[in-house]
Amino acid sequence: MQRTAFFISDGTGITAESLGRSLLAQFSDVDINMQTKPYIDSLEKAQNLAAIIDATAVRDGQRPIIIDTIVDQQIRDVIRQASGFKVDIFSTFLEPLEQELATHSSYSVGRTHSIGSDDVYMDRIHSVHFALDNDDGARTHQYDKADVILVGVSRCGKTPTSLYLALQFGIRAANYPLTEDDLDEDGMLKLPKALAPHRHKLFGLTIDARRLAAIRNERRPNSRYSSMDQCMQEIEQAEALYRRLHVPYIDATRFSVEEISTRMIAETGLARRFSPR
Amino acid sequence: MQRTAFFISDGTGITAESLGRSLLAQFSDVDINMQTKPYIDSLEKAQNLAAIIDATAVRDGQRPIIIDTIVDQQIRDVIRQASGFKVDIFSTFLEPLEQELATHSSYSVGRTHSIGSDDVYMDRIHSVHFALDNDDGARTHQYDKADVILVGVSRCGKTPTSLYLALQFGIRAANYPLTEDDLDEDGMLKLPKALAPHRHKLFGLTIDARRLAAIRNERRPNSRYSSMDQCMQEIEQAEALYRRLHVPYIDATRFSVEEISTRMIAETGLARRFSPR
Repeated sequence: MQRTAFFISDGTGITAESLGRSLLAQFSDVDINMQTKPYIDSLEKAQNLAAIIDATAVRDGQRPIIIDTIVDQQIRDVIRQASGFKVDIFSTFLEPLEQELATHSSYSVGRTHSIGSDDVYMDRIHSVHFALDNDDGARTHQYDKADVILVGVSRCGKTPTSLYLALQFGIRAANYPLTEDDLDEDGMLKLPKALAPHRHKLFGLTIDARRLAAIRNERRPNSRYSSMDQCMQEIEQAEALYRRLHVPYIDATRFSVEEISTRMIAETGLARRFSPR
Repeated sequence: MQRTAFFISDGTGITAESLGRSLLAQFSDVDINMQTKPYIDSLEKAQNLAAIIDATAVRDGQRPIIIDTIVDQQIRDVIRQASGFKVDIFSTFLEPLEQELATHSSYSVGRTHSIGSDDVYMDRIHSVHFALDNDDGARTHQYDKADVILVGVSRCGKTPTSLYLALQFGIRAANYPLTEDDLDEDGMLKLPKALAPHRHKLFGLTIDARRLAAIRNERRPNSRYSSMDQCMQEIEQAEALYRRLHVPYIDATRFSVEEISTRMIAETGLARRFSPR
């Protein structure tokens, strides 16, 4: 038997969905079909959605779960009349917060998020282009402007992490690949020259050899580059380097890009330039 | 007088922060210092944080607001004893949800987010590299594999949007610049040849001329490229093209990257490959 959950918002739906998924993640034995319905910002859209919810209740034989962050009372009233179990975030928490803060809430959800402001917009554009310009060791002369320099073997996840840091937090993240070019006479990986003046900015990624081989195989099938032997060796060298130079590092196999990024911030005290919405 | 709010989580803190910011956005007349405290996953960390909260209460002369998504009861008890006004999301909503779903919740927050799984990981890597490989018209032979092709004048926000779509939703977004190279004899912008077979995949961005000039000025100060005249002309041409060919488009000046991306999905029915956490 299936249940349906609707995450409804008059804005992006990011908050309702994020909270809804967190709550429903606690019920792993229930098969829940989750649907996000953003931009429900008119009575007409609300009426159409209410009809969909009612039809879903009939189809499922169970009322859907409704998690919403709509502020407008009229729009909310339309949704409230649909056949659903309502998790009403705003009315549950806003009233107690009004008392605690001894003021009225402004009922203007989404407006106060400052990410649309010019400054934040510019910071974001800059950070994204910084990440792109400084991807994969393409340039090294801007490292004095970097907030952090991600290092790791080819295809261990440096690029997505750099971009996530840029988009979500405005952090300027360069990244530099660790390769065999930097092995010394004894076959030990040494710190690439371009990184030496910026050791304090380094943050390492590592990865499980099997996953790395799988990723590389899609790029260059059956090559030395994607062989298990090669992947294992490179990873071993990289981790040895991190330990020798006390570079903090994270295993990208175990964590999502969100987790890697937020852990980096928590561990190193990297400062965000803005906050995600 | 300042108040402090703590968004506390045993995971990334993304849910607690997202909800907390939405709730507190309703109180724009209160000056609230917001702090995210992720990875509070041990009693020791909780005790340290509780001490910080208590010290903040003394400093502010007002108890801080605490919004948390911690699941572990012992850890939560430590935070609960700190001097704060608690917005307790999980205990408020989990019990009614348990009744509605007629089952117990698994208290394993964060675990069920599937973004760490191999499939999602691969989808994400692919989408990010797709966006990078197909950035700014660099390649056009993969457009049959694109979910969407963003078009617009240089520096109107195509790249950050493509990357956000890739990272958050696994959507494969290429982007292609509209430039004077594609003006016809009458000085009218025509559809670039590479895009003609993929018209149904196009999505346009436009931007306010003043902001565009500001962005371009940082890149090439005092150039024709960044002059108001040039920016206005290019934007006019691009918008005329969208209208003529019925390409849906959004004004990137008015919306954040999150809003542009979620609006694109809502308007075009683009399918996500996974969901953000």
